[in-house]
Amino acid sequence: MDDFDKRKFNEVEAALNTLGEKAFRAVFLNLLRFDQTVIYANVQPDEREVINRFLTIEELCKIFDALEVEEMETIRFLKEMTPRLASAILSDMYMDNLADLLGRMSRSDLATYLNLLPKEQIQEVRELLNYHERTAGAIMTTEYISVNQNETVASVMEIVRKRASQAEIIYYVYVEDETEVLVGVVTLRELIMNDDSLTAKQFMKTNVFKVLVEDDQEIVAQRVKEYNFLAVPVVNTTDHLLGIITVDDIIDVMDEESTEDYSGLAGVKVDGDEQSPWISALHRMPWLLTLLLLGMSTASLINHFDSLVSQASILAVFISLITGTAGNAGTQSLAIAVRKISVQNYHKIWKIIRNEVITGIIIGVFAAISITIIVELWKHSLALGMVVGISMAAAITVANLAGSLIPILMDKIGVDPAVASGPFISTLSDLTSVLIYFSVAQIFINSIM
Amino acid sequence: MDDFDKRKFNEVEAALNTLGEKAFRAVFLNLLRFDQTVIYANVQPDEREVINRFLTIEELCKIFDALEVEEMETIRFLKEMTPRLASAILSDMYMDNLADLLGRMSRSDLATYLNLLPKEQIQEVRELLNYHERTAGAIMTTEYISVNQNETVASVMEIVRKRASQAEIIYYVYVEDETEVLVGVVTLRELIMNDDSLTAKQFMKTNVFKVLVEDDQEIVAQRVKEYNFLAVPVVNTTDHLLGIITVDDIIDVMDEESTEDYSGLAGVKVDGDEQSPWISALHRMPWLLTLLLLGMSTASLINHFDSLVSQASILAVFISLITGTAGNAGTQSLAIAVRKISVQNYHKIWKIIRNEVITGIIIGVFAAISITIIVELWKHSLALGMVVGISMAAAITVANLAGSLIPILMDKIGVDPAVASGPFISTLSDLTSVLIYFSVAQIFINSIM
Repeated sequence: MDDFDKRKFNEVEAALNTLGEKAFRAVFLNLLRFDQTVIYANVQPDEREVINRFLTIEELCKIFDALEVEEMETIRFLKEMTPRLASAILSDMYMDNLADLLGRMSRSDLATYLNLLPKEQIQEVRELLNYHERTAGAIMTTEYISVNQNETVASVMEIVRKRASQAEIIYYVYVEDETEVLVGVVTLRELIMNDDSLTAKQFMKTNVFKVLVEDDQEIVAQRVKEYNFLAVPVVNTTDHLLGIITVDDIIDVMDEESTEDYSGLAGVKVDGDEQSPWISALHRMPWLLTLLLLGMSTASLINHFDSLVSQASILAVFISLITGTAGNAGTQSLAIAVRKISVQNYHKIWKIIRNEVITGIIIGVFAAISITIIVELWKHSLALGMVVGISMAAAITVANLAGSLIPILMDKIGVDPAVASGPFISTLSDLTSVLIYFSVAQIFINSIM
Repeated sequence: MDDFDKRKFNEVEAALNTLGEKAFRAVFLNLLRFDQTVIYANVQPDEREVINRFLTIEELCKIFDALEVEEMETIRFLKEMTPRLASAILSDMYMDNLADLLGRMSRSDLATYLNLLPKEQIQEVRELLNYHERTAGAIMTTEYISVNQNETVASVMEIVRKRASQAEIIYYVYVEDETEVLVGVVTLRELIMNDDSLTAKQFMKTNVFKVLVEDDQEIVAQRVKEYNFLAVPVVNTTDHLLGIITVDDIIDVMDEESTEDYSGLAGVKVDGDEQSPWISALHRMPWLLTLLLLGMSTASLINHFDSLVSQASILAVFISLITGTAGNAGTQSLAIAVRKISVQNYHKIWKIIRNEVITGIIIGVFAAISITIIVELWKHSLALGMVVGISMAAAITVANLAGSLIPILMDKIGVDPAVASGPFISTLSDLTSVLIYFSVAQIFINSIM
């Protein structure tokens, strides 16, 4: 919470503790939903208990629908309540949020709460729970509006009006034929602009943009971003409508995916709340110490070439220049490859790798020429310059290969490519760069001395 | 374009060249808007000329509104047309897109096209053009629906119906008082659920979430993401409504900002289309060669300690281990700091730096202990282990300081912190790490030998 939020929070907390139910409701219900959730999640448990009494089930349910704290937190809030109140709230929540929440519960909690729900809802939740994580099915909601294609504008509007309080989005109405196959979509905009007696079939858009229930959420987000929709329908392979995904969920997916890519590149989770330095250190340490061990192989490789360094200590001067430059180039390739993997078809992937390697060769040659000239001017040794130059060109090319190949291989074997982080690639590239450098130096050692 | 799109493209292109106007229109207009824009942008100029003739101005205008190619491309398409057609399309476009487009034109082009627009529109565009880039004002549109607070549901619905074809979003209606100050908002959902005779004032939400016209677009996006709105109103300091920002523009901002952060961390632009390796190399080279020069200072620093390395060539073994580990830690700090800067208040920033430095010390101490033990076991030299350990702890701490301080300083002086890229921080950290390492080694040189 920043300062402004904290002031607001203190005001409402004071109102909760000093004013009665009516006055508190007046203050609290005038807040924006997001602010309500922040306050609800941050008051003391006994204060939350008072809020639970002061608000109606519908009001509490809206807060639970909007709560964006960790699911574990939300489950804790439910456990603070009587099972009766908890089940009343759960059965009023939007299906996608409910499924999200139940999906995170322990088996015993899940059994408890599932049993408290109305029978028909249990069935629906079970279905949503069975869709694979990170697919369209897992993030869709089943609260949408659909009508038969022969309904008139007047009757569709009547349906919209009736469903308006429950449906998550009412601005699209999906149109089905007699066999319940999705055949069209009409917008609320079109409904209020068209004549009451027209049927949906007469003005619906038949080229419906839709996604399959098993589609990856990242692909869905990419598509929605391109096509600028407020919601997309989710269908099965026989084109029957199963649910919709709304733009706010798409935004969450985009945010999640971009944070993941970014975290991967940095080799650190960036989405944690403010943490104490101890906890931050604890989170970063395992990865850094793993890389330290990988770095030890580079150290023992240099150790292996100890006699070479003893003969020509000048070689030590260029170690960090070569490993650094190759590491930088490899990180660039990695970033490009990770981004392209997520939106490309598989058969394009070899093209990505090929392009990165060729790019590496071009950059490598230019870097090699530059450094050869610099070393020649500085140390008056063309041989040394060429050793450094050739090594650098080769090291950059190998780093680009590793930077693009490794995340792609990881993706192929089903591991999140973001694990092949920037620090990992640059530490690995240190190893190959040193190997290349000293091998080249070994060949030319007589010219250097 | 992937394979599927290419097939679709070839089909439509064939239809354009072989079928007549009517048949082409049937095929083309049944496509989703995004697909229409992809085709429009990718056909040959003479084919585009045919499309321009086959479609109506309204249909062309919708394509131009949705075109997401570079503004320069769109300007090129306009220049292919007669000025009369171009101005007809421009004057029909949404104000935010129009302002975007005109804002990228050369002065002479701007004058030409601005003069072709209707007088009242010129004024509005001029205003939009004057808002600073990356502020709410620069991305808002002026096509929203606002009503007086005393209008009834029936009359508001009448207004919505009339404006439905022009307004960019009709799902929120903004409510103003007699002095045109924004006092509330009603949703289309509420309008269709409420009684026709109620006035807006009686059921509007008075706690309107709004942003100031000068607010940074990143802050606006962050807020919309939290509050889950489809649009937010933009006001001036006297609470007069100037425009709205719709969720599709928010998605574009999020995408732009996250791509920027990601590109910054990698030190490479990741949002380019597929490029030839030559162009990729050309784009990446300046930055890599700049870092190569910075790396040269590290090299000359090692050179400065040449006599030390000659005495104890074992020192060379640990150079890349220390620079690598510090670089990894610095990259983590950088990623955390860049992410936090964008959403934090300024007075929290010193806390970010303090936390990163303390985290660095904690990690540094653990890494130091580990490496001291490893070196002692490997080389049977506690002194050497301690030199490497102390250097590593200090180098990590300094890297964390640099990783968090530098982007923050850059942000303070108004430079995009993303410029302080991962490769820059790790190259800089190479320099400080080497300095620390050899300075420490110098002190203990007698114990190491």
